[in-house]
Amino acid sequence: MKKKKVSFGNSAVDYYFHADFARLEKLVAKERTVIVTDEHVFKTHQKKFKGWNTIVLKPGEEFKVQQTVDVVIDQLIELGADRKTTLVGVGGGVITDITGYVAGIYMRGIACGFVPTSLLAMVDASIGGKNGIDVGVYKNMVGLIRQPSFLLFDHSFLKSLPKVEWQNGFAEIIKHAAIKDAALFKLLQSHRLTDFQRDAQLLAKLIERNVLIKTKVVVNDEFEKGERKLLNYGHTLGHAIENMYELSHGQAISIGMTYAALMSKQLKGFKQADELIAVLDKYGLPTFAEFDTKEAFRILQKDKKKDNQQISYILLEKIGKGVVQPLLFVQLKEIFNQFT
Amino acid sequence: MKKKKVSFGNSAVDYYFHADFARLEKLVAKERTVIVTDEHVFKTHQKKFKGWNTIVLKPGEEFKVQQTVDVVIDQLIELGADRKTTLVGVGGGVITDITGYVAGIYMRGIACGFVPTSLLAMVDASIGGKNGIDVGVYKNMVGLIRQPSFLLFDHSFLKSLPKVEWQNGFAEIIKHAAIKDAALFKLLQSHRLTDFQRDAQLLAKLIERNVLIKTKVVVNDEFEKGERKLLNYGHTLGHAIENMYELSHGQAISIGMTYAALMSKQLKGFKQADELIAVLDKYGLPTFAEFDTKEAFRILQKDKKKDNQQISYILLEKIGKGVVQPLLFVQLKEIFNQFT
Ligand SMILES: NC(=O)c1ccc[n+]([C@@H]2O[C@H](COP(=O)([O-])OP(=O)(O)OC[C@H]3O[C@@H](n4cnc5c(N)ncnc54)[C@H](O)[C@@H]3O)[C@@H](O)[C@H]2O)c1
Ligand SMILES: NC(=O)c1ccc[n+]([C@@H]2O[C@H](COP(=O)([O-])OP(=O)(O)OC[C@H]3O[C@@H](n4cnc5c(N)ncnc54)[C@H](O)[C@@H]3O)[C@@H](O)[C@H]2O)c1
Ligand SMILES: [Zn+2]
Ligand SMILES: [Zn+2]
Repeated sequence: MKKKKVSFGNSAVDYYFHADFARLEKLVAKERTVIVTDEHVFKTHQKKFKGWNTIVLKPGEEFKVQQTVDVVIDQLIELGADRKTTLVGVGGGVITDITGYVAGIYMRGIACGFVPTSLLAMVDASIGGKNGIDVGVYKNMVGLIRQPSFLLFDHSFLKSLPKVEWQNGFAEIIKHAAIKDAALFKLLQSHRLTDFQRDAQLLAKLIERNVLIKTKVVVNDEFEKGERKLLNYGHTLGHAIENMYELSHGQAISIGMTYAALMSKQLKGFKQADELIAVLDKYGLPTFAEFDTKEAFRILQKDKKKDNQQISYILLEKIGKGVVQPLLFVQLKEIFNQFT
Repeated sequence: MKKKKVSFGNSAVDYYFHADFARLEKLVAKERTVIVTDEHVFKTHQKKFKGWNTIVLKPGEEFKVQQTVDVVIDQLIELGADRKTTLVGVGGGVITDITGYVAGIYMRGIACGFVPTSLLAMVDASIGGKNGIDVGVYKNMVGLIRQPSFLLFDHSFLKSLPKVEWQNGFAEIIKHAAIKDAALFKLLQSHRLTDFQRDAQLLAKLIERNVLIKTKVVVNDEFEKGERKLLNYGHTLGHAIENMYELSHGQAISIGMTYAALMSKQLKGFKQADELIAVLDKYGLPTFAEFDTKEAFRILQKDKKKDNQQISYILLEKIGKGVVQPLLFVQLKEIFNQFT
């Protein structure tokens, strides 16, 4: 186990790397804690939850909605949760997002911590304090920026993770490499997914490295005035098509990264689009795709990360160097038209 | 008009006293602003809203619930509201609470301001950044602490305020006097409600004085670790019985203040219970009441302001000096039993 304290503006988050779930008992008082998890995680790791107050939600993005928040709040009231209660989200990004959000609004805010159990949640969703829920087709339309008290990384959860979810996690890992870390990109080129599944050491290093990439970006810019926007690489188009085609988050942003790489070529002289696309493909992610560009553009215009006339699009100058590019909607429409 | 900038921790709030609603155009860009109000306010002041994007809600506490939040969010999406949009709540405390809450969660937080139109909202609800909604019988079970950007006080709204709402406002004003300001208590003793309705000067001073009392308490203790708890005088029992009997907020806390005054007599040697009760009565507020003490106690045990075993009850040492008194639930139950 390796502990690291990270300060974000007003709040500090304790990171527990290479930790065991059992450590949770040392971090929180069992009788004042409520765990939120989903059926997949609960069923495959039932023993771990023994003796904990647990709220078990239906799994999947379609349940990352207000109705689920209502259910959690009703159960918290039922359990007698009060201001001294700690909520702990044990699950993928859907669970950490919902748990962080509920903890932020229940009784005007109670403590929370996360135990991410999907690769994506470990390297991305659990970090940085963004949380929220979807409203109709609009992803994360409602939510908060609020840091948890702690993050506990227990890799043993990943043993039960389905292959497609590994791929989803690698989509964010490849994103990190693309915008921030050329050496990580090389590492990804020289391995394949199964290497990381087989070699616990290699996996542990990969996770820690990615956790620290995202953490550093967020520490520099918690409220997304500048650098944090880079984490949206592939996400603008990705979010627009994610619900349109019921793609997983990783698949959607992989397609988003592909098209953003092409745009980078055109607008920034980015020369490594083919390499990037090859790595996405190597890790089992979709790249080129037929999609309704008109509809995607319409949804994208309602994206949170825009003002009225323009949008901040994330492009690459080279592998390891993402940049924020303001684009007028009229320009963007033209570019999108080329893709049909 | 008189402007005052107040700093709360990280955020600053501009107060505009004795202002005119028309000034709003100078504070926000009309085309990037959405006003939230209720039918009562909208109908009686329709002219003021001309040219503004406006969401009109059904009036009343029973609409301070998630379903209304859903409606506002859907309308914001419909209106194309984005991160640069400012929400302005124009109404009583229900409207300022809902507006502040929605502004806090929509797209993870957008700017907001308040134009309180009820006396209670002017002297209390609009100040201090607490917002939220009710869940079942539990008042303000969900919400945030988040300051608005500005408060605009236009007394002309009060011309249409029903008498019972004046009384509700005076309940909080009497509360302020009881916990913090013996001179204000004298002023209230030497006047009656109609004096303030007739004399615009006297009213303006009363409002400003009360705004500043509450503001000072919140500035000293934004996150309610200590002093801010005093503002809950009359509210612990008050909240418990407010929904039980569909009392207005002011009526409920007036009863709460009455019983808390009796408790203060018993536990703190408070000698002015009769005077306090006489003032509540003078301003048309209920004092003694028959209520189901068992049920009230049960709801109160789920109150936010408690931990598992005890509750912070607000008592008075004398008029102008409230104190926070920790009480075990077993003690409290005994005291309540005397009231039946
Ligand atoms: N808050 C942020 O900063 C942030 C960043 C990125 C993504 N996200 C959000 O995260 C979500 C995607 O994350 P996700 O892919 O982890 O979603 P998820 O929670 O839906 O998990 C994916 C699937 O894997 C299952 N699962 C998780 N851990 C498992 C385990 N150990 N064993 C077996 N099955 C397991 C889940 O039940 C689910 O079926 C999206 O909602 C996205 O918006 C948030
Ligand atoms: N956030 C806080 O710190 C805080 C503090 C105190 C109270 N509150 C909340 O405030 C609410 C009570 O406030 P309230 O009494 O203003 O409630 P309210 O908004 O329901 O207003 C009371 C009534 O007066 C009407 N009204 C308001 N202004 C009017 C005007 N100018 N002319 C005619 N009618 C008008 C409203 O339509 C409503 O019918 C409660 O929900 C309470 O929880 C919040
Ligand atoms: Zn993502
Ligand atoms: Zn009140």
